[in-house]
Amino acid sequence: MSFLAKLSAASRAHDSILCVGLDPEPDAIPESCGRGPQAAIHFLERIIRATADQVCAYKPNLAFYERYGAPGAEILSATLAAIPKDIPVILDGKRGDVPNTAAAYASAVFEGYHADAATVAPYVGLDGVAPFCADGRYALVVARTSNPGARDLQDLDVGGRPLYERVVTLCVERFPAERCGFVVGATYPDEARRLRSVAPDRLFLLPGVGAQGGDLALAIRAALDAHGGGVLPSASRSVIYAAGPDDFERNAATAARSLRESANAARSAAMSR
Amino acid sequence: MSFLAKLSAASRAHDSILCVGLDPEPDAIPESCGRGPQAAIHFLERIIRATADQVCAYKPNLAFYERYGAPGAEILSATLAAIPKDIPVILDGKRGDVPNTAAAYASAVFEGYHADAATVAPYVGLDGVAPFCADGRYALVVARTSNPGARDLQDLDVGGRPLYERVVTLCVERFPAERCGFVVGATYPDEARRLRSVAPDRLFLLPGVGAQGGDLALAIRAALDAHGGGVLPSASRSVIYAAGPDDFERNAATAARSLRESANAARSAAMSR
Repeated sequence: MSFLAKLSAASRAHDSILCVGLDPEPDAIPESCGRGPQAAIHFLERIIRATADQVCAYKPNLAFYERYGAPGAEILSATLAAIPKDIPVILDGKRGDVPNTAAAYASAVFEGYHADAATVAPYVGLDGVAPFCADGRYALVVARTSNPGARDLQDLDVGGRPLYERVVTLCVERFPAERCGFVVGATYPDEARRLRSVAPDRLFLLPGVGAQGGDLALAIRAALDAHGGGVLPSASRSVIYAAGPDDFERNAATAARSLRESANAARSAAMSR
Repeated sequence: MSFLAKLSAASRAHDSILCVGLDPEPDAIPESCGRGPQAAIHFLERIIRATADQVCAYKPNLAFYERYGAPGAEILSATLAAIPKDIPVILDGKRGDVPNTAAAYASAVFEGYHADAATVAPYVGLDGVAPFCADGRYALVVARTSNPGARDLQDLDVGGRPLYERVVTLCVERFPAERCGFVVGATYPDEARRLRSVAPDRLFLLPGVGAQGGDLALAIRAALDAHGGGVLPSASRSVIYAAGPDDFERNAATAARSLRESANAARSAAMSR
């Protein structure tokens, strides 16, 4: 099943447009899970069980697995195995290299880890993005990131329009909607609105909800497509390391449920206007 | 020892400015090495023994290790262990992400794998590059890549100058020369010349020599700094999978020696003009 079909089915089944990032941070994992790689596996398995009915996708960011060194691959494999088969997985690695090398990266995420989609960095050019958009694959091309430094390059004026818009325009021209969407930081709703106008039928992954300060309702309203779809808000730390009165699983479940409901409410409100 | 000091010492010791890429490609590894991850380890160990006295740096590209899945980390660790301690290692991953995540990537390459330098993608902004330029680290920021698609974004006009030049200018302003150099494809000497004028004191890694068609002498002449230094031409496939009449180790040694001598000759010729 294609990524978009699987995403759509999971979204309907769980009445959710929420993606949760699965990023193991040694210093934030509760001591009750133990220590080291086994703690990360144990922690993420329990987070997945606690949140699976609230999400339509999971997004492990490869950086947090690589930081564990060699055991990182084992943590990632165990985490992927714990994700219910009907929930699509976006491997967030933002890889980008020349074509021969990009093909190796794409093979690693799609054939090695059986990801449903992967994030890709655009700077190297479209021939470096293409291997991630091949048959049966799906690329979320980084357009506008959620960090303050995003302005340094992404906002530069290129022929009267910002560079991040050019990235999206070029990809829309080259890659079909069923193989390519975009990463648009939830912290920048104005930029998301601008991009929706040049990519009306594309999926936008909106990371940066919660810990990074992105306003969920604002981001959804800005990025929603004409049919009330096309948005995938994503939260990581604010769900899996959620503070609260209870044990970490209950806190994560509560945070995920609350974000899911807020996202649905924001979507309904935007569509009824 | 800092990356630049270690590089300079290795360069003097081996009378070489050549970097060799260590990229295990299952289909290209000789059958005599066996199959699977152990073959890659065996192959790369022998390549390193055959070429170590001809090079001043090695550059494993992470994509080719990740394609092996979980055993990729073991291949990389074994390969790094086989590199003589006096030869610096550039881990070529072209990572790029928001600051919190970039810090995890930088920790993985510098603390996990003890790399001397790492390549970094600039699109996310300078706050995503900064963790790779911290104390004791060295970032080679991707400026102009060696692929045909490099033109798609990197050459876009930004205020009368190409984007790749802006990348370099911004990094030169923000990060000191002992912590930050640039990746400039050997296939584009005109671009390298332009960048030398805005970054007179920076190291340029020049990948794409050989298999990708980069002309070694042309690239060196274009990129050399005012003191006859600052260039690090890099060849991968054309050395480690070199065709020839002998066994693969001898072919690799011959190819590396030939490139080393050509690089030295090109450098001498350029300096004597």
